[in-house]
Amino acid sequence: MEKILAEIKRGCSELIDEEGLVKTIKSGKKWYVKAGFDPTAPDLHLGHTVLINKLKAFQDAGATVQFLIGDFTATIGDPTGKSETRKKLSTETILENAKTYKEQVFKILDESKTEVVFNSEWLEALGAAGMVELTTLSTVARMLERDDFEKRYNAKTPISISEFLYPLLQGYDSVHLESDVEIGGTDQKFNLLMGRTLQKTYGKKEQSVLMMPILEGLDGVQKMSKSLNNYIGIAEAPETIFAKLMSISDDLMWRYYELLSFVSLDDIASLKAKVERGELHPKKVKEDLGLEIVERFYDKDKALFAQNEFNNVFKNDGIPTDLEEVVYDEAVWIGKAAVDGKVTPSSSELRRMVSQGAVKIDGEKVSDIKLELTSGEYVLQVGKRKFCKVIVK
Amino acid sequence: MEKILAEIKRGCSELIDEEGLVKTIKSGKKWYVKAGFDPTAPDLHLGHTVLINKLKAFQDAGATVQFLIGDFTATIGDPTGKSETRKKLSTETILENAKTYKEQVFKILDESKTEVVFNSEWLEALGAAGMVELTTLSTVARMLERDDFEKRYNAKTPISISEFLYPLLQGYDSVHLESDVEIGGTDQKFNLLMGRTLQKTYGKKEQSVLMMPILEGLDGVQKMSKSLNNYIGIAEAPETIFAKLMSISDDLMWRYYELLSFVSLDDIASLKAKVERGELHPKKVKEDLGLEIVERFYDKDKALFAQNEFNNVFKNDGIPTDLEEVVYDEAVWIGKAAVDGKVTPSSSELRRMVSQGAVKIDGEKVSDIKLELTSGEYVLQVGKRKFCKVIVK
Repeated sequence: MEKILAEIKRGCSELIDEEGLVKTIKSGKKWYVKAGFDPTAPDLHLGHTVLINKLKAFQDAGATVQFLIGDFTATIGDPTGKSETRKKLSTETILENAKTYKEQVFKILDESKTEVVFNSEWLEALGAAGMVELTTLSTVARMLERDDFEKRYNAKTPISISEFLYPLLQGYDSVHLESDVEIGGTDQKFNLLMGRTLQKTYGKKEQSVLMMPILEGLDGVQKMSKSLNNYIGIAEAPETIFAKLMSISDDLMWRYYELLSFVSLDDIASLKAKVERGELHPKKVKEDLGLEIVERFYDKDKALFAQNEFNNVFKNDGIPTDLEEVVYDEAVWIGKAAVDGKVTPSSSELRRMVSQGAVKIDGEKVSDIKLELTSGEYVLQVGKRKFCKVIVK
Repeated sequence: MEKILAEIKRGCSELIDEEGLVKTIKSGKKWYVKAGFDPTAPDLHLGHTVLINKLKAFQDAGATVQFLIGDFTATIGDPTGKSETRKKLSTETILENAKTYKEQVFKILDESKTEVVFNSEWLEALGAAGMVELTTLSTVARMLERDDFEKRYNAKTPISISEFLYPLLQGYDSVHLESDVEIGGTDQKFNLLMGRTLQKTYGKKEQSVLMMPILEGLDGVQKMSKSLNNYIGIAEAPETIFAKLMSISDDLMWRYYELLSFVSLDDIASLKAKVERGELHPKKVKEDLGLEIVERFYDKDKALFAQNEFNNVFKNDGIPTDLEEVVYDEAVWIGKAAVDGKVTPSSSELRRMVSQGAVKIDGEKVSDIKLELTSGEYVLQVGKRKFCKVIVK
C-alpha cells in the first residue's frame, strides 16, 4: 500500500482526504477516478499528459478511469455573437475531437480500465429548472472566494455569471458519476472541492481530491501552453519532440522526469546521485528522457531515429537527412518558398527573421528579403531547427 | 395623448423611455404591457392592486396586458431540503393559484384585453444549455450593482447564485413576449431594466419601463404586507375592508386616492381643495374611498352595508348586527369559544389580549383567562373590531 500511495502521490501538489482514498483502495469494490478534459482543444501537449500519467498510476493501483469530456458547455454558443472565442461546437465536431483525444490518451492509458463519458448526457437532462436548482446550492460570496474570481472582481475585470455555473456543473459531474477520486491541476482546487461539497449535499460519499502542479514549458518558468509557444505537442514529429526536450535546462529535466517519465522514483534518485558524483553526463540522462517520451507516442525505432537526427543537426551542425521539398518551374521569391516549405508561418515573419540574421541559404546568411532563387537546389534554414529544400528547375 | 399619458403616469415613481411609449401608442399596432406575479401568494392585498390598477390604465389607453405568472421558479424545490420556505409547488397548485388570481384581478382588469401567460412555457424550453447561455449575458459586477445585492454582499449575508438568475429570467420573459412596456415596483428597477438590456442583446425593440411606488400599509410607514399585518386583503369581508380604510390617517387617505382610487386626478384635486377650505369633512372623503374600494371587489349594496355596520360599531360604539355564532351544549372556556368564534387565532393570543384588558364579555373587561361561560348568550369582543356571539344551552 505504501508503494502504491508513493506512486499515486508522486509529483502531486496536494492530496485531500488520503484516508478516504486508502479506504477506497482497500474496499475491494470497483472504484473510480475522474478527470475532466475540454473538448475544444484535442491536440494534447506534454502539460496535459501530467494528468493522464497520473490517471495511469491510478489504473496501476486498480482504479477505473472516468475520462470526462466536458462537451456540455462546448455546445453553448455566445448568443450575443460578440465573442469569436466562444464558438459553438457541433456534436459532430465534439465526437471527432473526442476520437482524437482517445487516439492520443490510449497511448498512455489502459483502454480496458477507462470509461470515456460526456457530461452533456446528464447535464442536459437537468433541464432549465434543474440548472436553477443547482445554483441554489452555492453563494456568490463562496464563489468570489475562488482566487482568480476574487482577483478579477477586485481588478474590475468582468466575470460572466456563467462562470459561476462551471464549478457547480463540474461538482455535479462527480455527484452523477459517484467518483471516488478526482484529479486536476492546482488551479482547479476550488472546482475539485465543489465536487466534495455537492456530493455531501446529495448524500453521497465525498471524493478524494488529488492536485497536480502545472507543468512548466520549455522556458522553465511559464506554464506550458500553445499560446506561449513553449510546448511540446504529443502529435508533433518525433524529431521535434526529441529536439525540444534536449533544449530544456538540467533543472527542468529533473522536474520533467518526476512529472512525465515512468522511471521509478528510486531509479530517478539513483540517476541524480550519479550525475552529482560526475559518473553520468546530464546530456545522457536527457537523451534517455527524450527516448522514453518519443517511444511513448511513437515507437523505439522512431525514437532512435529522432535521437540520431538531433545529433546530426545540433551536435555536428549538419542538416537533417529527410527534408521537406518544394519544387518550382521558375525563379521563386524566398518569402514564398519559406511559406510553402513550412519553415515560416508568413512572409512577414520571414522578414523579421532575415533582419535578425536568422535565415540562411546553404549555410550563408540572407540579408535581403527580396532575394529570388533561380535554377538550382538550395537548403533554406530559418532559426536553428527549421529546414526545407527548395528546387528550382 | 396628454390626458392618456397623465393617467398612465398617475402616481408613478419613474417612467423610462416615455418617447418609446408615445411612439408605441401612436403606432396603431397591437401593443403589450407586461407585469409579473408570484404564483405562491394568490391572496392579493391592496398593495398588489396598485400595479393591477396601472395595468387597467394601460388597457384604457389601448394596451393588451400580459399578466405573467412566474410559475417557472415555483416548480423548483430546494434540493438540500433545508429550507421550508422553498417548497416546490405542484403544477396543480400553481394552476389553482392562477385561477384564484384571475378571479381577483378580473374585478379590475378587462378580461378581453388580458393574456394570462406562464413563464415555465418558454423558460423550461431553454433547457440546461439555454440557461447557461443566458448567464453569459451579464456579469457578477453588474448584478452586485443591484442595491439589495450590494447591501447583502457587504453585510456578508449569503446570496444564492440562483438569485442572480432571476433578473435574467425576468428579462428573458420580455424578450420572449416582445413586451412594449413592463411595469413593476420601484424595488424592481434593476430587473425591469434587465428586460431592456436583454431585448437589445437579442435584437428586439426595448420595452419602456414604468415603476410604481410601494404602497404603505395602514400604519402609513411600512410597506403593505401580510407579515406586517398592516394590509387590506381584497378577499377580506366588506366590513373589514371598509373599517380598515376608515382607520388610516388623512394624509394616507390622499395617497390611497392617488394609487388606489379611479377618481380622476382633477376630481381629487377639487376634493382636496374643498377639504382645505373646510367645505368637506375628510371623514366623508374617506367613506367615499371605502365605498369605491368595497364596491370594486363586491358590489354597491355590500359597500353601503359595510358603511352602515362601520357607523354602527365605531361611531355608535355598538356591536355589529350580523355576528358569527358559536353554540355549545355545556359550559365552555372562553379560550375555546374565542378560537371557535374566530375572534383570536389562538388561545395563547387571547391570553395576551386578556392581560392587555382588550377582551370583553357583554362590554365588561375579562381579567381571568380561565373564565368559563355557563348557560346563556354572550357577546365576546376581542380588541376593537372582533366580535362573536357565544350561546351556551
